[in-house]
Amino acid sequence: MAETDQVAATADQLAAVNFTDSVQNHAFSDRVLIRSIVGRPDGGAGLAGQRVRAGGWVKTGREQGKGTFAFLELNDGSCPANLQVIVDAGVAVLSKLVATGTCVVVDGILKVPPEGTKQRIELRVESAVHIGEVDPAKYPIPKTKLTLEFLRDHLHLRSRTNTIAAIARIRNALAFSTHSFFQEHHFLYVHTPIITTSDCEGAGEMFQVTTLISEAEKLEKDLIKNPPPSESEIEAARQLVSERGAAVKQLKDAKASKADISASVVELNKVKESLSKLEERSKLKPGIPQKDGKIDYTQDFFARQAFLTVSGQLQVETYACAVSNVYTFGPTFRAEQSHTSRHLAEFWMVEPEIAFADLQDDMNCAEAYVKYMCNWLLGKCLDDMEFMAKNYDKGCIDRLRMVASTPFVRISYTEAVELLEEAVKGGKKFENAVEWGIDLASEHERYLTEVKFQKPVIVYNYPKGIKAFYMRLNDDLKTVAAMDVLVPKVGELIGGSQREERYEVIRERIMEMGLPLEPYEWYLDLRRYGTVKHCGFGLGFERMILFATGIDNIRDVIPFPRYPGRADL
Amino acid sequence: MAETDQVAATADQLAAVNFTDSVQNHAFSDRVLIRSIVGRPDGGAGLAGQRVRAGGWVKTGREQGKGTFAFLELNDGSCPANLQVIVDAGVAVLSKLVATGTCVVVDGILKVPPEGTKQRIELRVESAVHIGEVDPAKYPIPKTKLTLEFLRDHLHLRSRTNTIAAIARIRNALAFSTHSFFQEHHFLYVHTPIITTSDCEGAGEMFQVTTLISEAEKLEKDLIKNPPPSESEIEAARQLVSERGAAVKQLKDAKASKADISASVVELNKVKESLSKLEERSKLKPGIPQKDGKIDYTQDFFARQAFLTVSGQLQVETYACAVSNVYTFGPTFRAEQSHTSRHLAEFWMVEPEIAFADLQDDMNCAEAYVKYMCNWLLGKCLDDMEFMAKNYDKGCIDRLRMVASTPFVRISYTEAVELLEEAVKGGKKFENAVEWGIDLASEHERYLTEVKFQKPVIVYNYPKGIKAFYMRLNDDLKTVAAMDVLVPKVGELIGGSQREERYEVIRERIMEMGLPLEPYEWYLDLRRYGTVKHCGFGLGFERMILFATGIDNIRDVIPFPRYPGRADL
Repeated sequence: MAETDQVAATADQLAAVNFTDSVQNHAFSDRVLIRSIVGRPDGGAGLAGQRVRAGGWVKTGREQGKGTFAFLELNDGSCPANLQVIVDAGVAVLSKLVATGTCVVVDGILKVPPEGTKQRIELRVESAVHIGEVDPAKYPIPKTKLTLEFLRDHLHLRSRTNTIAAIARIRNALAFSTHSFFQEHHFLYVHTPIITTSDCEGAGEMFQVTTLISEAEKLEKDLIKNPPPSESEIEAARQLVSERGAAVKQLKDAKASKADISASVVELNKVKESLSKLEERSKLKPGIPQKDGKIDYTQDFFARQAFLTVSGQLQVETYACAVSNVYTFGPTFRAEQSHTSRHLAEFWMVEPEIAFADLQDDMNCAEAYVKYMCNWLLGKCLDDMEFMAKNYDKGCIDRLRMVASTPFVRISYTEAVELLEEAVKGGKKFENAVEWGIDLASEHERYLTEVKFQKPVIVYNYPKGIKAFYMRLNDDLKTVAAMDVLVPKVGELIGGSQREERYEVIRERIMEMGLPLEPYEWYLDLRRYGTVKHCGFGLGFERMILFATGIDNIRDVIPFPRYPGRADL
Repeated sequence: MAETDQVAATADQLAAVNFTDSVQNHAFSDRVLIRSIVGRPDGGAGLAGQRVRAGGWVKTGREQGKGTFAFLELNDGSCPANLQVIVDAGVAVLSKLVATGTCVVVDGILKVPPEGTKQRIELRVESAVHIGEVDPAKYPIPKTKLTLEFLRDHLHLRSRTNTIAAIARIRNALAFSTHSFFQEHHFLYVHTPIITTSDCEGAGEMFQVTTLISEAEKLEKDLIKNPPPSESEIEAARQLVSERGAAVKQLKDAKASKADISASVVELNKVKESLSKLEERSKLKPGIPQKDGKIDYTQDFFARQAFLTVSGQLQVETYACAVSNVYTFGPTFRAEQSHTSRHLAEFWMVEPEIAFADLQDDMNCAEAYVKYMCNWLLGKCLDDMEFMAKNYDKGCIDRLRMVASTPFVRISYTEAVELLEEAVKGGKKFENAVEWGIDLASEHERYLTEVKFQKPVIVYNYPKGIKAFYMRLNDDLKTVAAMDVLVPKVGELIGGSQREERYEVIRERIMEMGLPLEPYEWYLDLRRYGTVKHCGFGLGFERMILFATGIDNIRDVIPFPRYPGRADL
């Protein structure tokens, strides 16, 4: 190879490297991500002349020029923008390409489109690598504008719509920003259990987890195939045992040989064993095992009654009281018959817990965390946020900016009630009467954050009567060190508290609330041994997505919503 | 203020800022994290002279100098190293401080200890801010060396031991490295459902999720408090209805006034309503609702039978076939009666799914991901890894280095079987006979990775008979495009496959395996409409922790282990 050739080769390689940097998707596929083309600051224009393989699903397609070529808007979910693709009739059967939902993988050359078009770059196809066809007459979601409600009946396809895909990217960004925030602040991610034998709030409304029913069904089938012995079969077996027993006795009495006696004993043991097996089987009863008129949970998988968690807080406290700063991020469950747009039976919660920290620290952490998420979305998801602003909630970007930049108002519950009472005097009507001692209703919370202050509000020091036993009793003996973060659009986003770290006080509170002590002994141990002041909060992750996107129904911001009567897929 | 004062103030502020940078914990607490002192490259020596507040739990404490002062080894879980703390008898009652497990918050000055001691820095206490006492006679885990088995009976306190805390930090690091890896490669984190009505593998062994039992118990209690009406009560109510009916008829026949008639009709309707309520209540039966001799699941919370997921794969495929690169990271469940050191009823899985990608891409992704995690631990968790190497598995750091730097061996299943057969010929004894068609047993997998190659091995193209219906059929029609990643210490770490994207083929495979088509119709839709080649894999997260730490029992690497007979907390 001549030296000049070598130089040329190196230049080629360099170009390839540059290309790799800009277009390479690092996504373990031989096609490039569309975001690495159209998501560039130049809209992809700088890549003109590059040869690429692209793949995605057709958003809209149309044949043009009397069927001589087709325009396809191709999207692979990597960003909201589509790649415009132009295919000549000589390259593929155009009619197979243009249906919405068709999957297309093509090789081609990136070109700058003629002036006057919206696109900064388009792909001129040289060959079609793959076509995953769609019959538009049968495709369940063929149109581009479908209601979110309609899409809920097609969970397995709805992520192919612009809206659900944008929500998926925003959800992903919020999840990763959550981890990033807590990792930056030296919190350890702890996996609290999903199956639990503790009831955090003592509130009931839990899903039960069991194998008793399936075991009972298995047994039932088995008993049909292989019925339990009748009384006469057992009687016959008993008869046999007594006969063989008599035979042994006879041989012994007759001083028979040791070999004869032991052979006869072996026979006796055999029939004894089959009798005991028959007796065992005769006791089998179809149905869920009972004992003393109640379900016998000792026979359940965990040898006791088990449930799906409603919160990881109590369990994560065991880690906070050992490694200081921790958080959970996992699914939680409520078996409530709530048919509202704000409740799910399965939802995700973020629950940090901080040792050596009080309610002020808790509020500081909550505020910093919410601001961090807002800034993250503004910095990394602006294209998706613009889509939401355009299609669902004009104010959603401004709301993120406002929350990211405004110090949260902090008022005590008592002050909050005073403000609400003032509002009532001023003519504001609430459905729920306002007086000190009530649990603030959603309308009250939204009034405070949306009307009165028009910014996030933290309300703290709630009456102890309306809060959980584990919240720290304040010196007034009337309120506890609880706090709720209220934000425009959703109201309560976060609920937290400083935890009662004084053994005598928390023991008293458990009894005062009529709860049994025994199930909380392990929780009390954290106060008995090396107790520490600590606090924490819970953020409903789907609420945060509602807040960010402006979407109205919580069923649209979780990939597979579970609610009364519905658990598709 | 004079100008010099201003300068001085600024210098102070600057010092404060530097202090903040180095010692500040960003952890929403007024105490500094111990890692920000002893975790520095200089072991904290550079902070001598600084005044800090520190908090943690006493690992070991002892009174010295005839009770004139005490040494405490304080740990707050932020790193494996302790902070040495020296308290004079004048500052606090020393006997209250020295018990293992005591929580202590102190203010003091950092000092370089006298030469010849192990520590690079120690804290001289000026005042004790908080003491959370421990009665060593009662503390359940007073000693420093306790068996892991013993600690499993004290889940709520075991995170205070060095081992469980180190595992918690390694687990946290692996979790965040997982998110970082997939985010860097443009994968979206998707939350697949925990409660599901699909059975991914068709394999059974699922936990049932239900409210039927608790509803039945509620009803039973209600029926005891408020028994259903007797036949005679109902009869009496019927009697009343017919009397009131007769009265209406009488008035009508007598052409009574409209007012009189309608008053009488009102009376009739009242007694009709109470009759229908009585009849309704008389139908209430204690126990789980039945219909046609079977449990009536239409009355369950989701109006059908529901389970805990065994894998999010099928559901996450719906997102891969819309937004290309996705992953799940969540809890999964198996109701197996496995009492081994490798099985849990609740465990965490990472499941990426890649569209536009084949088995080669899948292997590339799996290898890159495992290497990434190993490098992460070596870079960010070396102190904890050193603890594990010293106390549990001498080779664990070398193993991470080897896996991070060695290309994984890739052999087909057929080659793997040949190698195992050769080994048998060479005298190697396996408990499970080797022949083409068997599922490789753990002993075979460990032979390949630990003995034969002594590095990670990917085995691919397994016989279709031993693999799931969704794996892509190879052109030989005998094998499927499946792959398992085997690593020393644990054997199988990852299982994955290219998915069957051809509608006719996958339909055939479902039927061939004797599975019903109907529950998979939604899954088939992904092949009916815009199908695309795609692949994915699952990594058992706890297996990865076993691999990293060298810990033997899986129950020790998850905070709250669930297994047959046990679900504490």
